[in-house]
Amino acid sequence: MIDVGIVGGTGYTGAELLCLFARRTDARVKVLTSRQEAGKRADALFPHLRGLTELAFSAPDEAALARCQAVFFATPHATAMHSVPALLKRGVKVIDLSADFRLKDAALFKQWYQHEHSAPELLKQAVYGLPEVNRAAIKAAQLVAAPGCYPTSVQLGFLPLLEQKLLVPGSLIADCKSGVSGAGRELKQSSLFSEAAESFKAYGVGGHRHQPEIEQGLAAIAGAPVALTFVPHLVPMNRGIHATLYAKLGKPGTDLQALYEKRFANEVFVSVLPPGAHPDTRGVRGSNHCQIAVYTKGDTVVVLVVIDNLVKGAAGQAIQCFNLMFGLDEPAGLNQAALWP
Amino acid sequence: MIDVGIVGGTGYTGAELLCLFARRTDARVKVLTSRQEAGKRADALFPHLRGLTELAFSAPDEAALARCQAVFFATPHATAMHSVPALLKRGVKVIDLSADFRLKDAALFKQWYQHEHSAPELLKQAVYGLPEVNRAAIKAAQLVAAPGCYPTSVQLGFLPLLEQKLLVPGSLIADCKSGVSGAGRELKQSSLFSEAAESFKAYGVGGHRHQPEIEQGLAAIAGAPVALTFVPHLVPMNRGIHATLYAKLGKPGTDLQALYEKRFANEVFVSVLPPGAHPDTRGVRGSNHCQIAVYTKGDTVVVLVVIDNLVKGAAGQAIQCFNLMFGLDEPAGLNQAALWP
Amino acid sequence: MIDVGIVGGTGYTGAELLCLFARRTDARVKVLTSRQEAGKRADALFPHLRGLTELAFSAPDEAALARCQAVFFATPHATAMHSVPALLKRGVKVIDLSADFRLKDAALFKQWYQHEHSAPELLKQAVYGLPEVNRAAIKAAQLVAAPGCYPTSVQLGFLPLLEQKLLVPGSLIADCKSGVSGAGRELKQSSLFSEAAESFKAYGVGGHRHQPEIEQGLAAIAGAPVALTFVPHLVPMNRGIHATLYAKLGKPGTDLQALYEKRFANEVFVSVLPPGAHPDTRGVRGSNHCQIAVYTKGDTVVVLVVIDNLVKGAAGQAIQCFNLMFGLDEPAGLNQAALWP
Amino acid sequence: MIDVGIVGGTGYTGAELLCLFARRTDARVKVLTSRQEAGKRADALFPHLRGLTELAFSAPDEAALARCQAVFFATPHATAMHSVPALLKRGVKVIDLSADFRLKDAALFKQWYQHEHSAPELLKQAVYGLPEVNRAAIKAAQLVAAPGCYPTSVQLGFLPLLEQKLLVPGSLIADCKSGVSGAGRELKQSSLFSEAAESFKAYGVGGHRHQPEIEQGLAAIAGAPVALTFVPHLVPMNRGIHATLYAKLGKPGTDLQALYEKRFANEVFVSVLPPGAHPDTRGVRGSNHCQIAVYTKGDTVVVLVVIDNLVKGAAGQAIQCFNLMFGLDEPAGLNQAALWP
Repeated sequence: MIDVGIVGGTGYTGAELLCLFARRTDARVKVLTSRQEAGKRADALFPHLRGLTELAFSAPDEAALARCQAVFFATPHATAMHSVPALLKRGVKVIDLSADFRLKDAALFKQWYQHEHSAPELLKQAVYGLPEVNRAAIKAAQLVAAPGCYPTSVQLGFLPLLEQKLLVPGSLIADCKSGVSGAGRELKQSSLFSEAAESFKAYGVGGHRHQPEIEQGLAAIAGAPVALTFVPHLVPMNRGIHATLYAKLGKPGTDLQALYEKRFANEVFVSVLPPGAHPDTRGVRGSNHCQIAVYTKGDTVVVLVVIDNLVKGAAGQAIQCFNLMFGLDEPAGLNQAALWP
Repeated sequence: MIDVGIVGGTGYTGAELLCLFARRTDARVKVLTSRQEAGKRADALFPHLRGLTELAFSAPDEAALARCQAVFFATPHATAMHSVPALLKRGVKVIDLSADFRLKDAALFKQWYQHEHSAPELLKQAVYGLPEVNRAAIKAAQLVAAPGCYPTSVQLGFLPLLEQKLLVPGSLIADCKSGVSGAGRELKQSSLFSEAAESFKAYGVGGHRHQPEIEQGLAAIAGAPVALTFVPHLVPMNRGIHATLYAKLGKPGTDLQALYEKRFANEVFVSVLPPGAHPDTRGVRGSNHCQIAVYTKGDTVVVLVVIDNLVKGAAGQAIQCFNLMFGLDEPAGLNQAALWP
Repeated sequence: MIDVGIVGGTGYTGAELLCLFARRTDARVKVLTSRQEAGKRADALFPHLRGLTELAFSAPDEAALARCQAVFFATPHATAMHSVPALLKRGVKVIDLSADFRLKDAALFKQWYQHEHSAPELLKQAVYGLPEVNRAAIKAAQLVAAPGCYPTSVQLGFLPLLEQKLLVPGSLIADCKSGVSGAGRELKQSSLFSEAAESFKAYGVGGHRHQPEIEQGLAAIAGAPVALTFVPHLVPMNRGIHATLYAKLGKPGTDLQALYEKRFANEVFVSVLPPGAHPDTRGVRGSNHCQIAVYTKGDTVVVLVVIDNLVKGAAGQAIQCFNLMFGLDEPAGLNQAALWP
Repeated sequence: MIDVGIVGGTGYTGAELLCLFARRTDARVKVLTSRQEAGKRADALFPHLRGLTELAFSAPDEAALARCQAVFFATPHATAMHSVPALLKRGVKVIDLSADFRLKDAALFKQWYQHEHSAPELLKQAVYGLPEVNRAAIKAAQLVAAPGCYPTSVQLGFLPLLEQKLLVPGSLIADCKSGVSGAGRELKQSSLFSEAAESFKAYGVGGHRHQPEIEQGLAAIAGAPVALTFVPHLVPMNRGIHATLYAKLGKPGTDLQALYEKRFANEVFVSVLPPGAHPDTRGVRGSNHCQIAVYTKGDTVVVLVVIDNLVKGAAGQAIQCFNLMFGLDEPAGLNQAALWP
């Protein structure tokens, strides 16, 4: 039995982690921290967990967390970076779901997150937690930076094409659409029901924090810098990301369907749909799966990618990394089907 | 390993059954029938099941079904009644999710469903599959009629009050609200997105098929006829039923909170919320749980009940019955938490 | 041309007032106040008004408001009561959309709104702005308290029955359902998209501020105190209220359909639907209409009422009162059809 | 007073036409045809029109239609082409909202709509009803082919860029998102609430009927063939189209904000938003407005366009054309603000 701590468990990502661990028999959440909700039972905040957990929130306490073998951070950015170094020193394995350890360049972190990084020396050591790309490194890691939701969908979608160097540089576009839970549980006007329901819009076209993370990831895959045009949109639904990817093919003629099927043949959480299919986000709602369809239109490739932003885009992927870090079956605790409809 | 058949597995209820069985190791779906989709793989119709099942639809075939130990009917009404008698004779246990064996009175069936009942002799034998009321009988049953979604919510909500004879006859009102999946996957104009979204309405106020089923169930609990005012409504959401129940208290002064807590103390799928709480349907979305809150306002009791119409209101409850019929743990295969948000 | 002021025009009700005045040629918004947004153009906050108004917000200023002939307050409660007395003294007609002047009893106001009323002497003078009940008084009023959204739907629905004294006292129930815009534009967790979408719940069952207002209104209609069981619910949609009303008929045998049709025959904004019809909220979305259907089920009457909470339940009704106060055509500026679908 | 006929008025587009004409005093719907609903009042089908129209459906009748000065066809494709020639001969002006007269090439029509065109001789005469491009021709036209919803958004968005020949050929991408009402009121499984709600997907990536219409329109603007990568998506909302357009700039350095503002300065129904703004579909929900924002990202231009698919994308634009054809004010009857929220 592996003891797990969750720091900052009051948001949607924290709730998802709790939920995914609730039914496991090989690991259990031992410590669940929240400064604000300390003393309250988790199922008072999350009534859907009634009967599934007896856990209560406690104030953050390094000693208690250090008694866990793994600690997940589901905190806002610029929080984990203050606590992680001490936990690492005490031998704890850390999976950070925030942005703190994703970017390799501390200056870039400061530019996009307006905070001086307090532990820049860990940025190199931190392993980017995308198992389909970094499996071996994750297995050996003590600190994993779990990817953001948009970056997961875009990187998985472009992965086979960039590995094979099939794309014309400068031609990559990611038109991404996210459900509203992607904005978290904070009180923001744009997250109000009456602002988001029955409407659709782009946002952050001038610049979005996930852009440098995506470009860093794409570059690592391609082995060379990759420029991307990235436009995120808000969809009136709770969960789900749909990435529609475009690029020019530098070498036409490749059988892309076969390429994708081969690349992901051994990936338990990535399905390549048959030719002509269109994945919908509900097909992966609540599950850790990614579904991909690929089309060639003239010299342009169009890739459709769907994931659940809170599962494969956050908590599920973090647990996939956890499983790898502890030598467990990679899909352990992640076999839930999508909720449909 | 128990072999299971599902007849009519192309609707939302059939998909939910498939999904719930997909992860079990003590039972498996062996036969999945659909006249229309015979030959097609289940995950071609239900992409959310990719990777979870290899099953394909086959044309209905009595011999194949008879080789199963249990057969679920997820068919429209007036279908199961034609096939069930033969299966029972061959020793198969049957759980019918349609309306065919719910009403004890064949004349009432004809009145509400416009079909002469073809197996009226089985109506007495059929056990009404509400475990919280009929557990012992379900364990011994060969034929279970799984309750409708509205009837489940209304009966569970009134249960402690009727058992204790606390209500003034003639005062019972059930104002029920259902998500759109309750209307099934048939093509009906009122089920179109652009008809139901961003709108709310009552329907069937002049008379709804679930009314006689509910009144029959309430009468069985009360040991006397019970009249009910029942008004169903359509909510712009996929899943969930919220029943708001009203009645006059004949004997004021009872501690209803204590009564409910005691009555459901041993029911693993029914939670009585603390005083002052309001259950929401998302708290049980995708789970087999029922959450109940009870309020006393003067001489009026108000009971709030939520279930997922496709799980506790259909497939989940049917599997709960299946578990009882086969001597398995009652919650086997039903421990999924609600998807939240 | 009548000059109009709007105090607190940054919420949904203020936006709706602006929108409804934007196309009028007999009245115009001259002053639009907001402490926070002073200096900003209205169409910067409300892009749907681009091209329809050049207006900008200004800081609240009594002198500027006093130069208007009518001032609408679309402010939170306990705000208008401080400014209204001075405006009345300067001859301005006031329509208050907040709760400040609805209750006749200052003690009741304090109990439910936790504020000592600062202008209790005006409570008697204030006319409750439900034209279908109080038309003559509204015409002569200088201060109108526009009703809340729930109270409008419940009072219109019970109106003919109470006037005719057809109901058994103590038997009245209002099971009401509201779209999320009814909660306003404030930042509240329960108003977040991911909290309200794909879910349904009751709230305030222990007590809701609209209850004393409704009971006061029903009593005024009945000429005697009326007790009501009132349960509000939240529907995952932007706009609309559906009230489902129940009561026992003291005198069975009345033709209720005829009674309702006669009572509302001359009401331009109330439609009685034909027998067997079910109004849906989208049928009045964006319009000032109220649609009503009435059913008799044994000795119980069931009334279905729909309005748009921001129009007939707020801004539209306030303008209806404004028209009456200024001797204009009652439906002036209110002829927009519902947006469907 | 201009007498108007509407053929096929039972769908969403027909309802919208009825609604927009209901409040006009310079034109009225005289004939409203539907084979299926003949004899039924319009407000029985469309309860939101109660009190706004007394009109009833009649069976299609050439003589009755010929007595109108203008006839709108809101029929499925391959219907209008059979009736239009006779009406034109009798001097009636026709606005066809279907696809029948949009494509100039009858072979292309057959390829995409699987019908031999029955009136190919009219294809040249028919004027494509996009006023911002074809105003003069529309004024003089007897037959107008109103554009589809996607084509309207894409053409308006690329218009200034193509006119100025600023784009690299082959680089144009239109990633479009539509509300579900765009699929019409037909019974299709993909239009069911429980299929579309809480989900998002692309469709028709392999080929969509609007593609040749868009390319024809873009070519007419550019004066040369234009290739386009077009991917439509389905958004879980009733109304609205959001087009996100991408292209490579052949001539960097142009001030695109100024270009767009200048191009649309005199267009009453097109608003260019200030730099950095993001239009949302609710900002034009129910209105005839198009809102556009333009961004330059390196050598890539990103254009965001929103319209209401049933208004500027169908009925509203058809009425805009009607106004032009009859010498009326272009915005007559189209001044409704968006419904917000």
